[in-house]
Amino acid sequence: LSQGNESSRDYVLGVDVGGTNIHIGKANRDCVPLKVKRYATDARNQEALIAGIMGSMERYLAEAGPPAPRAVGMGLVGHVSVAEGVWENAINISVTRPVPLCATIRAKFGLPAYIDNDVNMAALAEMTFGAGKSHADFAYINIGTGISAGLVSNGKIVTGASNYAGELGHMVCDGEEHVCKCGRKGCLEPLASGGGMIEMAKKAVQSARDSSLARYVQDGSLHAGTIFREAEKGDPIAGSIAEKAMSALENAVVNLVNLMNPSLVVFGGGAIEKDFILNRLTDFVYQNALPVAAKGLQGIRISALDPSLVGLIGASRAAWDGLGMT
Amino acid sequence: LSQGNESSRDYVLGVDVGGTNIHIGKANRDCVPLKVKRYATDARNQEALIAGIMGSMERYLAEAGPPAPRAVGMGLVGHVSVAEGVWENAINISVTRPVPLCATIRAKFGLPAYIDNDVNMAALAEMTFGAGKSHADFAYINIGTGISAGLVSNGKIVTGASNYAGELGHMVCDGEEHVCKCGRKGCLEPLASGGGMIEMAKKAVQSARDSSLARYVQDGSLHAGTIFREAEKGDPIAGSIAEKAMSALENAVVNLVNLMNPSLVVFGGGAIEKDFILNRLTDFVYQNALPVAAKGLQGIRISALDPSLVGLIGASRAAWDGLGMT
Repeated sequence: LSQGNESSRDYVLGVDVGGTNIHIGKANRDCVPLKVKRYATDARNQEALIAGIMGSMERYLAEAGPPAPRAVGMGLVGHVSVAEGVWENAINISVTRPVPLCATIRAKFGLPAYIDNDVNMAALAEMTFGAGKSHADFAYINIGTGISAGLVSNGKIVTGASNYAGELGHMVCDGEEHVCKCGRKGCLEPLASGGGMIEMAKKAVQSARDSSLARYVQDGSLHAGTIFREAEKGDPIAGSIAEKAMSALENAVVNLVNLMNPSLVVFGGGAIEKDFILNRLTDFVYQNALPVAAKGLQGIRISALDPSLVGLIGASRAAWDGLGMT
Repeated sequence: LSQGNESSRDYVLGVDVGGTNIHIGKANRDCVPLKVKRYATDARNQEALIAGIMGSMERYLAEAGPPAPRAVGMGLVGHVSVAEGVWENAINISVTRPVPLCATIRAKFGLPAYIDNDVNMAALAEMTFGAGKSHADFAYINIGTGISAGLVSNGKIVTGASNYAGELGHMVCDGEEHVCKCGRKGCLEPLASGGGMIEMAKKAVQSARDSSLARYVQDGSLHAGTIFREAEKGDPIAGSIAEKAMSALENAVVNLVNLMNPSLVVFGGGAIEKDFILNRLTDFVYQNALPVAAKGLQGIRISALDPSLVGLIGASRAAWDGLGMT
């Protein structure tokens, strides 16, 4: 983890809660993360999870010593009510009852807290440092276990009515009959996310044990990138899965560009296939989006931000925004 | 055309330029349209079109007499650059070279002018008077010859980078192999717009002359509503077209609800099938949207605004907004 130098005693605490790790760091007024530390997420149950987050913050602040931060910004997976300060639910880490997280933080640490979901935090990070800095209308698309988007319109995150906008993964965009967890057929997520591609590979190798994917499935090391690589080497199972993923993502991104008219699309997340995004997808989008939308789109890029810091940057930006100091 | 009472001498001029008619009316500070008059659109060529718009405004203002309006708001079809005040292009009425319309209006009438496309004007009208008044995040979907949407996020129109956001008609959302004018297969517009459905019916009756649609095709009176009605009476051609339209629109609206998380979806336009929207579509969306998005959606409605006044209301709102007086 890269660590900047502490340039000011005026800082906020950024907290990025993921399924495996909690990253905590200070951030100065420029949202540069400093003294970043990593703690394990205790995801056994909801009580352990919340206690673990609070405990990690306590340890961090005790080690950091005075002065206290001005506020806390926190990125979370799942559904977050920003205005209410409530973590409504999460599927991968089990949050089944709403957690009044901002009130809990204020009660324990005496600090104002600002929370949002991880993809909105990533979009905020892009607005602060990344490719989105010079774009008022852009889409940040995260492809990891699932697929979701942070949409920015006229310099503001599109939140929707329940801060739930951006569910690009559940856009039906293909003739595929593949059934999604959400119940519909042809959604993007089961076709083009890392989780979806791995799932398809597991099913496929059951009846195609000679596929080069079989040994990765067996030793549990299968990654979306492996599927793309084996596809390129000629494995037909991998080829079919990669082709479905690429075709679905092509359709979804053109749909999004036609609907939102962004000047930039930025990709992040652990399951992006850079060569595909930068070559085939980019060509497809410019050739297939409506002419005015294609003309307005200045680029399709991979996020240049450090994946281990992007959540912290966004969380600290949310804290400064919340304090009205940006 | 309904006409309110003139309650104030402080007014703007609303102008709604359609493919067939130009509607012009005064509007007071509450955006109530007054003394609405209708002029024919002269769509022979671009020069005649612009001269006709200017001439209609001149006649209207001469008949209205003093005082002069504070500003002009104008709704247009096609692509409009709001900030530049330029009508970039339109397909149905031929605008092939950009028209600096705001500068032309200022030069001729000495008035500030504010222009936007018709669907954004309809969304503004909904924000002012309609169902969208109590909703900060809603989608207005117009189904007429084509299909497009005015998207409202946090009380503001989502413009995109080129004021071209909202092209819902060119969302691929179906396994249908139908090729759209935009070049992609499975777009919503050729399947579910009035224009698209009529096009499909014309093709189908060529090889199915016993279809009850044949005589409507022949006498040129075919309307999307006819196709829905004949489908209900059991005509198989009409049934197939109606089913494709409904299925595509169901998928597209769920996609939109998942992506934008609106608290309201409002339908307008001449080709909406009220029974389908209010019954089958509504049921489908609530059953198939992601649970949080479905919970946030408070309703799916047909616009209650008078179709002949909605453009004028939006145009006058754009004028008051432009003057900074809302």
